[in-house]
Amino acid sequence: MTTRPALLLTPGPTPVPAEVAAAGAEPIPHHRTPAFAATFSRVLQGLARVYRTTNDVVVFASSGTMAMESAFANLLRPGARLLVVSAGSFGDRWAGMGRAYGAAVEVLAYPWGTRPDPVEVAARITADRTLDMAVVVHSETSTGSLLDLRAVGEGCRERSAVLVVDAISSLGAAPLETDAWGLDVVVTGSQKALMCPPGLAFASVSALALARSEANPTARYTLDWRRSIDAQRKGGAPFTPAISLLRQLDVALAMIERDGLDARIAETRALGHGFRRAVAALGLPLRSPDDDDCGLVTAFGWAPGIDGDSIRKRLRDAHGIVLAGGQGQWAGSVMRVGAFGAIDDRALVAGIAALEVELIAAGHVVELGSGVGAFTRALGEARTA
Amino acid sequence: MTTRPALLLTPGPTPVPAEVAAAGAEPIPHHRTPAFAATFSRVLQGLARVYRTTNDVVVFASSGTMAMESAFANLLRPGARLLVVSAGSFGDRWAGMGRAYGAAVEVLAYPWGTRPDPVEVAARITADRTLDMAVVVHSETSTGSLLDLRAVGEGCRERSAVLVVDAISSLGAAPLETDAWGLDVVVTGSQKALMCPPGLAFASVSALALARSEANPTARYTLDWRRSIDAQRKGGAPFTPAISLLRQLDVALAMIERDGLDARIAETRALGHGFRRAVAALGLPLRSPDDDDCGLVTAFGWAPGIDGDSIRKRLRDAHGIVLAGGQGQWAGSVMRVGAFGAIDDRALVAGIAALEVELIAAGHVVELGSGVGAFTRALGEARTA
Repeated sequence: MTTRPALLLTPGPTPVPAEVAAAGAEPIPHHRTPAFAATFSRVLQGLARVYRTTNDVVVFASSGTMAMESAFANLLRPGARLLVVSAGSFGDRWAGMGRAYGAAVEVLAYPWGTRPDPVEVAARITADRTLDMAVVVHSETSTGSLLDLRAVGEGCRERSAVLVVDAISSLGAAPLETDAWGLDVVVTGSQKALMCPPGLAFASVSALALARSEANPTARYTLDWRRSIDAQRKGGAPFTPAISLLRQLDVALAMIERDGLDARIAETRALGHGFRRAVAALGLPLRSPDDDDCGLVTAFGWAPGIDGDSIRKRLRDAHGIVLAGGQGQWAGSVMRVGAFGAIDDRALVAGIAALEVELIAAGHVVELGSGVGAFTRALGEARTA
Repeated sequence: MTTRPALLLTPGPTPVPAEVAAAGAEPIPHHRTPAFAATFSRVLQGLARVYRTTNDVVVFASSGTMAMESAFANLLRPGARLLVVSAGSFGDRWAGMGRAYGAAVEVLAYPWGTRPDPVEVAARITADRTLDMAVVVHSETSTGSLLDLRAVGEGCRERSAVLVVDAISSLGAAPLETDAWGLDVVVTGSQKALMCPPGLAFASVSALALARSEANPTARYTLDWRRSIDAQRKGGAPFTPAISLLRQLDVALAMIERDGLDARIAETRALGHGFRRAVAALGLPLRSPDDDDCGLVTAFGWAPGIDGDSIRKRLRDAHGIVLAGGQGQWAGSVMRVGAFGAIDDRALVAGIAALEVELIAAGHVVELGSGVGAFTRALGEARTA
């Protein structure tokens, strides 16, 4: 095999398009110049359009986890009451983070591979008038389960809790209406549907969340929303921003604008549908919920007697194609593929074709081309549906 | 003037060398692959060599301020006793951060433009056996004052406090021996002497600091040192790292290795000396301490009747050369120039030549070439000294 860059089919980091990558090599401007101020302002406006919000969107030079932590740092004090809805390892992470912040954490858990019941989630949030904060995961990347966030948001308008949404792998890949659905805090990262390298993360902050934050005296500094919002409203950042990544984001947001956010989300859904038809055609067990709403991430297993992790290693080493493995209780038992960001039909066709080769080499009975055929057929149908 | 990238003479972000910039456009590998693990391991080893330490160096996808905050988050609990040595706006920032963390903050303040007395600093740290943490700024970027860190470190070995060093603009630009000088926590950022875009920051953590952190139950998650150190010792990062920036850092560290850290530091000192001779030749008042140890950042003013900020604006708009302005109590009254990282003799010559032009245009009596001449003469002497 010739030397070539790895093809990432992972649900984050996702591949970075060439024109976004190129912006990462441009000479960086100083962040206190009109040139950078124009970039920053464009980025904030572009983010607001993807978020579908008029709330402030705070920009962090950080991982998505740190932007999620901003909600905990701004909203929780020791003994605060926190509800976490968990159907996978990221939900579990937020529960652990809540405990690290000294909160009284209640977990509404759903089995891995299922979708949370939005009616039950909304009811739990509204029923408890002493709840300070509720955390839901929009796309649970560890399992490929998408929450019906619209139903949750609209079902719990009469709440006392601040509603915090982990949209790290969903914003830009699945429908999400921050304002229309009444979502207080929505967090995402640069390395998912926004098609940039990792290192930037974002949190939209509603008036309610900001007011609660200001009434909370706990220790925080760089994660303090008010400090960032004050600086951003004046056109700058409170600390040296990740300039090169912001310039890349500027390019990526222009691409999203050009394609149209709704069209991109529709294509993600079609790609996910197609990929799941391929998984079925190859006789592999789908571990994600069997619902096309969840198609942006697909987790699947393999037949007994096959060593899936060594197939994944072969895909990486012999084909240069990277799939994600399982996390937490699914470690060693699934592969995970993303169908969003810059992962397109060509990339998925390459991945499925290579998977067919390695499945056969491992003794799994399947016909070469059957997975790819199922994918292209289903994709065509989904696109014209 | 033709369109061309701005020349940054600012003390951070500093210019990014072409080969470092180019690495920012390469396709990114997934962070859970052997290829990335090799990069990450090389970066950790390279950082340890620049830090001159065997302590763990925690890598954050963040600004330098956030890495400094990791010391506050790991070490302070409400009511903790904190000493901050301040001779400028960054010292003041750390005092403000200490108050945000509920600490009882004592500030040992020195006038802007002077160097802290290292004997006094060490004595204050050792005298107080109830002190939890002491923060010193190695290079105070707002004024161009360098602390004699060796004297401080060696003078306060018998201390109860954890010694935290802001080396954000100094590590790699001035002598700093983490282990030999007994420095517990040393923080730096990617966008200074390490010649990378902003977005990465680092904190070395001594055994004492780590033990104190583990005994402190306060809330923190992504900034928790133990969590990062455990992951890094296994070769990975606990959260998605800023992959493209780490690959750029890998290239920059190789450049530093190739040049030799000591040679680079000696060149910075020579460049700073030369620049200060130019400032004197142009009849501009030096506002930084008049000591070549402090040459990595130079703050200078201008003659009465001259509008320095409009000169700075002209340098930027007509010459494409960016100098930093003043911060805090020096806002509007100084310009600041860095002489480290990728800022070399050519860049400084260009800056001084343009400054001469604009000083004359503003009515300041000076001979064209006199600043540049003073610079090249002093640089030559300093290099052969």
